[in-house]
Amino acid sequence: MANQDGVVVSVLTQTKQQESPSAIDRLLTQTHADMARVNTLILERANSHVDMVPELARYLIDSGGKRLRPMLTVAAAALFGSGKGHAINFAAAVEFMHNATLLHDDVVDESDMRRGKPAARMIWGNQASVLVGDFLLGQAFMMMVETRDIEALGVLAAAAAAMAEGEVFQLAKTGDLATSAEDYAEVIRAKTATLFQAACEVGAMAGEADEAGRTALRAYGLELGNAFQLVDDVLDYRGETGTIGKNRGDDLREGKMTLPVILALAEGNEAEQKIITSALGDAEASDEQVRAVVTIMERYNTLGRTMDKAHFHARAAADALSPLPQSALRDLLADVVEFSVSRAY
Amino acid sequence: MANQDGVVVSVLTQTKQQESPSAIDRLLTQTHADMARVNTLILERANSHVDMVPELARYLIDSGGKRLRPMLTVAAAALFGSGKGHAINFAAAVEFMHNATLLHDDVVDESDMRRGKPAARMIWGNQASVLVGDFLLGQAFMMMVETRDIEALGVLAAAAAAMAEGEVFQLAKTGDLATSAEDYAEVIRAKTATLFQAACEVGAMAGEADEAGRTALRAYGLELGNAFQLVDDVLDYRGETGTIGKNRGDDLREGKMTLPVILALAEGNEAEQKIITSALGDAEASDEQVRAVVTIMERYNTLGRTMDKAHFHARAAADALSPLPQSALRDLLADVVEFSVSRAY
Repeated sequence: MANQDGVVVSVLTQTKQQESPSAIDRLLTQTHADMARVNTLILERANSHVDMVPELARYLIDSGGKRLRPMLTVAAAALFGSGKGHAINFAAAVEFMHNATLLHDDVVDESDMRRGKPAARMIWGNQASVLVGDFLLGQAFMMMVETRDIEALGVLAAAAAAMAEGEVFQLAKTGDLATSAEDYAEVIRAKTATLFQAACEVGAMAGEADEAGRTALRAYGLELGNAFQLVDDVLDYRGETGTIGKNRGDDLREGKMTLPVILALAEGNEAEQKIITSALGDAEASDEQVRAVVTIMERYNTLGRTMDKAHFHARAAADALSPLPQSALRDLLADVVEFSVSRAY
Repeated sequence: MANQDGVVVSVLTQTKQQESPSAIDRLLTQTHADMARVNTLILERANSHVDMVPELARYLIDSGGKRLRPMLTVAAAALFGSGKGHAINFAAAVEFMHNATLLHDDVVDESDMRRGKPAARMIWGNQASVLVGDFLLGQAFMMMVETRDIEALGVLAAAAAAMAEGEVFQLAKTGDLATSAEDYAEVIRAKTATLFQAACEVGAMAGEADEAGRTALRAYGLELGNAFQLVDDVLDYRGETGTIGKNRGDDLREGKMTLPVILALAEGNEAEQKIITSALGDAEASDEQVRAVVTIMERYNTLGRTMDKAHFHARAAADALSPLPQSALRDLLADVVEFSVSRAY
């Protein structure tokens, strides 16, 4: 689904195992009209007379992200009806929050690459990345304010605070060998699933869903987000540099305590633990070291079990929608969950 | 006015030239009851089960800042009446926004010191400073949402975006010898005066001021903020390391194009320009180099003329209040302007 403005790119190539259009491509088609309006709003609000702001913001925004979160917002709204027409603003605000987080995360993680291109901070520096992130966050709240929906604003403000809290928790646990699977579950819920949850919840609110509908979409978003991050953390070890848009083993080198490494440390013998800890948090760890760690992970099936957990959350996401009236869009949203998991194959 | 919880410290020592309590100390007395509630709310909302969040946030929050901005908010509200009691939340939100900005600015400026103590980033690192700043910003919006005043929320959201934009503009102009006095005026308005303006405006809104009252407080805050930053930029050259809480000449070493240096570059001869440009943006510039630049500034009276400009804005701030009914608090707010200027003597 290449489209003229080039901001939404095809993801068909990523889902090779399917012949028919993937759920995500069907979602792209389904939300195309709304997303065209979202994209226009995004470009408009990333503007500034300070040239560096739109330059940096557009570099990131146009970098081929799938815009999954704002698509979920407009799809969730459409599930319930057109409502007051707030879905476009909500969706753009969600995408700005996401992009603000990416800019700050890349500074925090000292990432060189993002979506297969040099991270913005490698071109404009850490300083501009921090400040443009702040600008996008301010603009996100401005777009929310325009709808005058204080309740939806509260959902996104709470998500902003929770996401930052989750990132700090992850930072505090960096390289901490005592990090538990529960700690990890809390990190991914806060730093990733919260925004998926908020994106879906404000979408339902834009569609004027009743309480049950809003609760269903909240739960759907939360579980989808959990599944999404679990898969991301598997891809970091299993993906090929180039196709995952960053370098294989980055999480290991950054000392990130993700589930595959937590389980491998818990179950490996002393020699295996030593192989892992010598690479963990070492920015200079070689590809050979990463491969050795992956071998240990395969031995204890920690990547497979992390995928099992992703599937568990994916099923919970689909199940969350089942109380809602049957519709093609509801079924499509359930199918989209599969996409978040199938990325890893 | 030392008080039990230690969060508001006396500033009497900073205004040695006066025998009677300074305007700022009178404002402290005047707002004491409200500020006690603001401080309680600030400590409560800086809390998190992620230990690093309150540790870092409280280190900054308790570090002896005057809390001028939230004091202005509660004083502005009191000027018009108690209203719906939103002033406490608005004031705490303003202070959180300010502290979020400080955390991010110290990362951007690579500052070692803040308020005479090591900057938070020197203890917890740049990463935590960025993320805890994000957390405080999220919490600020949460406190605003609780009041359900969407209009006041819009004022603060616009301020957040404008402040970040101003910081990016300042960054883009770093070391740029072509920076004009107009560019500088825009930078200080956006990065500093906007929050003073918003602090006063939401205060007036909390007091349910009419349109004229809100406009008066907006203008007062804007001009006070402009005066405040001009004085700050003079103090960076004129202040003594230790009393200004950072190192003399920091702006010069960071390549910040403030008015004293813009004027000196415009009026100095070639040899003088060379002395300035050789130190400008050089993190390793010696105290002797800073002194040589200050000598040039004194020769062309650029620090004095920057102070003149500060006085001009200070008068405009006081004048902005004159349409309002006479009251002791109105006169006190006018007197407070003097404090922002008298810091430099």
